[in-house]
Amino acid sequence: MNTNYYIIVPIVVGLLAVAFAAYLARYVLSKDDGTPAMQKVADAIFKGAMAFLNRQYRTIAILAIVAAIVVGLVLALLGLTTKSNAIDWNLGWHTSVAFLIGALCSGVSGYIGMYVAVRSNSRTASAATRSLGEALMVSLRGGAVSGFLVVSLSLLGVTSVFLLYGGLSNPALAPELIVGFGFGASFVALFAQLGGGIYTKAADVGADLVGKVEAGIPEDDPRNPAVIADLVGDNVGDCAGRGADLFESTAAENIGAMILGVALYLATKNVGWILFPLVVRAFGLIASAIGLLWLRPSRVTEPDKAAGKDPGEIAMQQLNIGYFITCGLSIIGVFLGSYLLLNGLGVSTASSFAPSVAPWIWFGLAGTTGILLSIAIVYITQYYTAGTWRPVREIVSATLTGSATTIITGFAVGFECVALPVLAISGALFLSFFFGSQVQILDPSIPHFINPGGIFGTAVATMGMLMSCAYILAMDTFGPITDNAGGITEMGGGAESVRDITDALDGVGNTTKALTKGYGIGSAALAAFLLFSAYLDVLYSLSHNSAFYRVDLSDIKVFVAALIGITLIFFFSALAIRAVGTAAMRMIEEVRRQFRENPKIMAEDPADRVDPDYARCVDISTRGALRAMILPGVVAVATPIAIGCILGPSAEAGLLMVGTMGGIVVATFLNNGGGAWDNAKKYIEAGYLRVNAEGEMVDRLDTTGTILGKNSEPHKASVVGDTVGDPFKDTAGPSLHVVIKLLSTITLVLAPLFIALHP
Amino acid sequence: MNTNYYIIVPIVVGLLAVAFAAYLARYVLSKDDGTPAMQKVADAIFKGAMAFLNRQYRTIAILAIVAAIVVGLVLALLGLTTKSNAIDWNLGWHTSVAFLIGALCSGVSGYIGMYVAVRSNSRTASAATRSLGEALMVSLRGGAVSGFLVVSLSLLGVTSVFLLYGGLSNPALAPELIVGFGFGASFVALFAQLGGGIYTKAADVGADLVGKVEAGIPEDDPRNPAVIADLVGDNVGDCAGRGADLFESTAAENIGAMILGVALYLATKNVGWILFPLVVRAFGLIASAIGLLWLRPSRVTEPDKAAGKDPGEIAMQQLNIGYFITCGLSIIGVFLGSYLLLNGLGVSTASSFAPSVAPWIWFGLAGTTGILLSIAIVYITQYYTAGTWRPVREIVSATLTGSATTIITGFAVGFECVALPVLAISGALFLSFFFGSQVQILDPSIPHFINPGGIFGTAVATMGMLMSCAYILAMDTFGPITDNAGGITEMGGGAESVRDITDALDGVGNTTKALTKGYGIGSAALAAFLLFSAYLDVLYSLSHNSAFYRVDLSDIKVFVAALIGITLIFFFSALAIRAVGTAAMRMIEEVRRQFRENPKIMAEDPADRVDPDYARCVDISTRGALRAMILPGVVAVATPIAIGCILGPSAEAGLLMVGTMGGIVVATFLNNGGGAWDNAKKYIEAGYLRVNAEGEMVDRLDTTGTILGKNSEPHKASVVGDTVGDPFKDTAGPSLHVVIKLLSTITLVLAPLFIALHP
Repeated sequence: MNTNYYIIVPIVVGLLAVAFAAYLARYVLSKDDGTPAMQKVADAIFKGAMAFLNRQYRTIAILAIVAAIVVGLVLALLGLTTKSNAIDWNLGWHTSVAFLIGALCSGVSGYIGMYVAVRSNSRTASAATRSLGEALMVSLRGGAVSGFLVVSLSLLGVTSVFLLYGGLSNPALAPELIVGFGFGASFVALFAQLGGGIYTKAADVGADLVGKVEAGIPEDDPRNPAVIADLVGDNVGDCAGRGADLFESTAAENIGAMILGVALYLATKNVGWILFPLVVRAFGLIASAIGLLWLRPSRVTEPDKAAGKDPGEIAMQQLNIGYFITCGLSIIGVFLGSYLLLNGLGVSTASSFAPSVAPWIWFGLAGTTGILLSIAIVYITQYYTAGTWRPVREIVSATLTGSATTIITGFAVGFECVALPVLAISGALFLSFFFGSQVQILDPSIPHFINPGGIFGTAVATMGMLMSCAYILAMDTFGPITDNAGGITEMGGGAESVRDITDALDGVGNTTKALTKGYGIGSAALAAFLLFSAYLDVLYSLSHNSAFYRVDLSDIKVFVAALIGITLIFFFSALAIRAVGTAAMRMIEEVRRQFRENPKIMAEDPADRVDPDYARCVDISTRGALRAMILPGVVAVATPIAIGCILGPSAEAGLLMVGTMGGIVVATFLNNGGGAWDNAKKYIEAGYLRVNAEGEMVDRLDTTGTILGKNSEPHKASVVGDTVGDPFKDTAGPSLHVVIKLLSTITLVLAPLFIALHP
Repeated sequence: MNTNYYIIVPIVVGLLAVAFAAYLARYVLSKDDGTPAMQKVADAIFKGAMAFLNRQYRTIAILAIVAAIVVGLVLALLGLTTKSNAIDWNLGWHTSVAFLIGALCSGVSGYIGMYVAVRSNSRTASAATRSLGEALMVSLRGGAVSGFLVVSLSLLGVTSVFLLYGGLSNPALAPELIVGFGFGASFVALFAQLGGGIYTKAADVGADLVGKVEAGIPEDDPRNPAVIADLVGDNVGDCAGRGADLFESTAAENIGAMILGVALYLATKNVGWILFPLVVRAFGLIASAIGLLWLRPSRVTEPDKAAGKDPGEIAMQQLNIGYFITCGLSIIGVFLGSYLLLNGLGVSTASSFAPSVAPWIWFGLAGTTGILLSIAIVYITQYYTAGTWRPVREIVSATLTGSATTIITGFAVGFECVALPVLAISGALFLSFFFGSQVQILDPSIPHFINPGGIFGTAVATMGMLMSCAYILAMDTFGPITDNAGGITEMGGGAESVRDITDALDGVGNTTKALTKGYGIGSAALAAFLLFSAYLDVLYSLSHNSAFYRVDLSDIKVFVAALIGITLIFFFSALAIRAVGTAAMRMIEEVRRQFRENPKIMAEDPADRVDPDYARCVDISTRGALRAMILPGVVAVATPIAIGCILGPSAEAGLLMVGTMGGIVVATFLNNGGGAWDNAKKYIEAGYLRVNAEGEMVDRLDTTGTILGKNSEPHKASVVGDTVGDPFKDTAGPSLHVVIKLLSTITLVLAPLFIALHP
């Protein structure tokens, strides 16, 4: 069968996934949205979130249009430097249009996903009054709308631009024309994640420092002027920001793998190598949908029948079962995809020890490696950020000697926690490369020192890892929904037993948010090698100079560019962290002003109280975030362009690679360090910190120990740790995910420029 | 003239420098050592420091002997894998013996230097009762003993091993035989810096947290049981540790540059290329001695005649003048060295725009670039760590909103501050490479794609930068001496006016300590390219395979090794920081125990008081540091060996390069971030923090503002920042300097092993 026909798979499955998202949205929106008090809070959150998103996307749209025009013009003018010596509108407009489509799809998926997410929060709060099972279902499905939209629109976008640009008639050229799609997606993601990340933490820090610490009112108290901004922030940061992040991950990695497939297509005349990433992604959507649908309220043991089992544990277990179903089906899918597409002429097994194993099986094994890596990363992240293990307890124990030792210990944990993920990623890279190397693909067009099977093996592993993306993203968006549901219950005056359920789900949401970050950075690391190889393929195809395949660190330009790459990661993080500080400072001033000028907010008698001006705080967070996201964003975009122009394409490869490595390590440190501090605080708040007569920490089940809980000195120290971790884990860390991928898409798009300047 | 004869220069100058150090020691020791009360304190410090050093060097000696035997045996057994198929004792014993000599010289210079330093503290305290000028002179000269011993013993050690191994009769082989010297020096430095760094911070944190915070007694109070351990720590960390660090820097970089010189020697038959690093280092010693001798008490304006000028400013100005004299003479020296040695057959100017400029002038310019870089780094470090500039003030302003924002802002500053040094280093690398490239050295033995002139240009720049090493090290050791002098004055009951002088000198010492770290990491960064190139030269000379000159990041093994390299930096830092925590915890328990079991320590009436048991605290710090230094040390040594053995020599090059880049960036972050926090605290303690009616920070000279000084809330927040920064800037950061160089020396020594395993 002609593998061309498989292009139908991503189209049909993509459309079905959009329909599935619509079905989930209808399911969620049809649910009861709670008491009028709840609705009032939910409405305020909805309005604030949508207002921010509107203004943010307006700013991003202007930036994106300018960028698209500039990139298109630059690429077109490059024609003047070639033999033809004429303006080459072809490459220019293809890239510009693809850029804009990528940017638009990213925006649409973020927008609709968040619309449903902020509509799900009050429905989750309402469902929690009835049962844990229903609350879990509403919140997870609300999150899944975003998850399925992101992945399906990314898939449909790449596929349709590929078709539009003549992918089936000229499969060798189309992938390079559509790299603009990835750049557009990265560009939007950078500003979406930065803006959302700054917004959420400015509001959070402002609400906590003035409300909780200075005024002494509890979390999510309606008297806090910044409380709505804080709840809005959860959505725009975790939901819209992470959605844009994973949108561009799936897009960029699909496109990179398709570019790698071009060389193999040229060698084998089988377009399956190019279509493989799209088809496997489609299979992943099916696997994720089945995993999600397996979860039903009837399968959830309600807390009153659970014999004292924690509702959080019950919910987490359900989510895990769905995830394992998704992974199991993904393994079948990746083998099936390999069998259908990675076969044919010119491909043979080169394995010396297992010569009878067919090539597609080797690639299936490579894909399985990626899927297993995703599970490993999930467990390693849990180890470092969950209160059940040594790292968080180490931080809890340090809170006994004050905030300084809390910070120092959290640092040690954060610096330490990069080692296991990197070893797991390294192992997966080697293993998938090894599996791929067992397949021989010979063609005179491929330089002899390149191992195309091995490189494609790492690409297949990345595709495998990203198959569960929609499911993971559903679990991620579940986080802000349940967090908001808790806030709505609190502010809407819900019962204690209801708050128990929403608190438990919120705790689960914290874990799943941390897992998603680990998953995001792990897949970025696995993809780094493939994206880097794709860049070298592009350089080779543009220049026909095989020397570009070598990125030689002993070349002083490559060395310096690499050093600048890793420095960029640190400098960008500094700007992102500082931006939170600047925006938070404005919020602090506003909250203090409201308390000062309007004492009725804090009136003793609840009947005398007036509502604070929530909208002003929302507005300040919005402006602050939009203003503060520009500088770090521009630095991240401008540095790789400048280095590529000044030092040339090989140096750029050095910056790309070493910058990516630095980004992986620093982002892991920021995410997990911040997560561990957060959970150390939660550990104490849960009443698990017990000390003996000498003041030493004992086991949380040791009933002879004295509990040190909320408002104790150790708790205060843990709050400092948590606050320090906030901009790490929710602003700088996640933004670095995007920066890493942005480096790749910028280099892919601007490779012709770098080569023209350094022929 | 036969350039062989120039070997006499390093020998004569090295011996003269040792004599100069002896002269300085006599000058210092002949000074009056203060009142009996001061002597008592000084004696306790002396005993504690020497006891630690004895035990530490005993442990290190055992480790070093084991390492020397293992390395020698492994290298000898490699003969079995070669054509000769016989055990090759030659390489084995040469390396082992060189290793032990390097280890021994490092130990001796550290030991004697510290002996004089701890004898200088009470003499400085006594001199401060007479005049600022005399106190400055005693403390700086006391520090200079260590500075000149370190540099001269490193120079004499390398020179004599070179001669011993037939350097003049067979100059091409000797440099590779003496790499063991560098490895031995790195090995000692790693454990000396780790052990000293852990000791000093465990004692400091313990003394501060229990003494200052819990018991509420001032800094350096004799009632604090950990006070002597704290004062001892300043010496063993800053003095002995940093001395060992720079000993190995100078040794490793000399040897690396000599290896690079071998190829040029083979091309030109001029042994001057190999001797150049030794001769220029000797010139640097002369320049440093003149710079130091320029400073005299008569040139110092005494505070009572200074019209209100701060004594710290006066002292810093004097030190700066001496430094600029040293730099100016170094520029002359590097041109002279180039003229005398870098000439002759086969060398010509290849410059297209300045063809009449002689080759030695280009190299002189390269050396000048390095010297100017050292000045740039000094100023950048001051910008980021001194209270006069934006970064520290930003942290001070953040203390107004509590410890969490103090930490976050310090982080942003620390992450930001890597950018300028990296840009300066990148510029210096390019510039010196460019200058060197103007010189053409043609020889069939050098692969055509290698630019030997350019690479040697970066080596000359490194040599230039390190010429002022003895002076810099004198300023560094000046730090702990003045710090101790302050403690002795306080504990010995000195007058307020005396304490003013010692406090001012202590503040200057903090700045010079920070500068030395910047200088250390800057020179390590500049040297990275030369050491890396030397490793590739060694690989080529062992294998005659020019493919080893390419370190190709697109090779998956190199990629993974590079990723592991940067991870090693983070993991090592985590272990070092945690080691401080572990050791500090024991110290805290001991201090609490003494206060609890012996209430007379804190008796109201001074007459009833008894001295606490200082010796026990010293002992606990000693044991804790020795125990805790092992794990991080072993990880740092074992990882590069394991990667080289498993993944091969090219992958090892990737680990070396990217690990080095990561180390430069992370160490800069840790050093400067810690320094900025420290000085933010000092800024507040100096009474410079003023706020207006709205609670916003105003200029320190704005007299309408209210001063928030010691024991205010912002001050408490700044203490948290300072404590967090302590293990960063004094343990993990400085230890990373050593790790970077250790990576280089390990790879140089074990290159034959890696090649034998991956032929």
